[in-house]
Amino acid sequence: MGFKEMFNLARVPSILLLGALYVAYVLIGGVIFWHLEGQLGTRDVGYIIEQKQNLLNKYTCLNAVQDASKAGISLRSNYTTDGFWKFTTSAVFAATVVTTIGYGNISPRSSGGQIFCVFFALFGIPLNIVVLNRVGKYMLAIERNISDFLEGKMNHNTRWIHFISYLSGMVLFFVVPMLVFQNQEGWTYSQAIYYCFITLSTIGFGDFVADNNPEKTYPDWYSILTACWIFFGLAWLALVINHSIEILERINNQLKGWWGSKNPK
Amino acid sequence: MGFKEMFNLARVPSILLLGALYVAYVLIGGVIFWHLEGQLGTRDVGYIIEQKQNLLNKYTCLNAVQDASKAGISLRSNYTTDGFWKFTTSAVFAATVVTTIGYGNISPRSSGGQIFCVFFALFGIPLNIVVLNRVGKYMLAIERNISDFLEGKMNHNTRWIHFISYLSGMVLFFVVPMLVFQNQEGWTYSQAIYYCFITLSTIGFGDFVADNNPEKTYPDWYSILTACWIFFGLAWLALVINHSIEILERINNQLKGWWGSKNPK
Ligand SMILES: [K+]
Ligand SMILES: [K+]
Repeated sequence: MGFKEMFNLARVPSILLLGALYVAYVLIGGVIFWHLEGQLGTRDVGYIIEQKQNLLNKYTCLNAVQDASKAGISLRSNYTTDGFWKFTTSAVFAATVVTTIGYGNISPRSSGGQIFCVFFALFGIPLNIVVLNRVGKYMLAIERNISDFLEGKMNHNTRWIHFISYLSGMVLFFVVPMLVFQNQEGWTYSQAIYYCFITLSTIGFGDFVADNNPEKTYPDWYSILTACWIFFGLAWLALVINHSIEILERINNQLKGWWGSKNPK
Repeated sequence: MGFKEMFNLARVPSILLLGALYVAYVLIGGVIFWHLEGQLGTRDVGYIIEQKQNLLNKYTCLNAVQDASKAGISLRSNYTTDGFWKFTTSAVFAATVVTTIGYGNISPRSSGGQIFCVFFALFGIPLNIVVLNRVGKYMLAIERNISDFLEGKMNHNTRWIHFISYLSGMVLFFVVPMLVFQNQEGWTYSQAIYYCFITLSTIGFGDFVADNNPEKTYPDWYSILTACWIFFGLAWLALVINHSIEILERINNQLKGWWGSKNPK
């Protein structure tokens, strides 16, 4: 094999190139946010920690505030964690921008960061949609291959197999993450399933955010698994939502047809 | 005109029916959220206001906390405004769910509210996409009609007119709202344009939210104008983003073609 042929990128599936572009885009965005916000973040955190310490030294009464915090009045945890805009945090932030989840637990506070965020999203959101659609198509193709294989093997009918594959998706992207989050974050089952849905639907309230509690130590695999879950989950849910829209449109057309035959002009 | 003909809904454009369904869906959702969260909210607010008053009476030192709050440590404003889950707030919340903006400045805290939120979004998001796509098509049709009219009238070429209509969209959905928000909310220009973009892209960090500052009194037209801006802005930006995706796909295909002709198999 010649040198030229070895590096013939036309043979590398375009999805890998696109995926690499996507990852590079998010990481470069992360670096820029880190630089734009990092210094500001550190300065602010330093100032605030100092302020907080002064307060606590002067007025020991402030334990009462910490009690009140449990009832909803909280010292915003953003600013009390060390190293607010670290590189990893910035990369996660960049990912929440391009996916439009936008938890908002951290967000740019400098004008430069805010303006960069606008341009970053302007190209990142379309790129994200293209990548997720492509990944979704691959997932559908894999699902069809497995379905066809099972259909030939076990003589089940197609509808039944499609239902099972839909159910497997639900288990893989909702039930398994729910159990993991319940275990790792200490949320209730209903909070965990709510978090899963709010994230994958890209609503992203930010009232619950995984891998973000400064009081917890998470295992190493946790953040990687969470990122993979979000990425493939978004692709899968986009498929399901597109399917729901098709069904809605079909019902709409059927209603129209039914109405037209009952009320001919 | 007979009674039957007068009520022949087949003559009402289907977009109005769909729009009515959409509005009804959001309002009903608002009512349900209000009932599920309202009592909880009022109880919590009452408890917290009482707590806060106790604190302030006991320890006058706490003005220091209010100074610190300006530096980032804030008593979360959610819980200090009166009537947290009012009907209007609940309807706005329902709208942020179906559009997937999800500012997260308020979010359901009861298990019932959280589970309802999941099911509300499950049907609301596809409905929202269908309605916005339909509205987008109408907006495009209107734009084409105006373009054709101007083309015949002034003998300009089409590309120039399309550029002007794109620019008008930018002015209508970004520049005008920026000026209004800068004026009404007291944000800087860069904060206002950042808010506009973060909202219409459905990222919705919730770091800036219009019509949500308890210390401001807004004019009557303000909330209605904001709602209209979000609705038509989302439809317009969906068109623009779809257009960007088409351009990205075209560039991708051209690159592929260029690569293929340089490296034939
Ligand atoms: K969002
Ligand atoms: K959000």
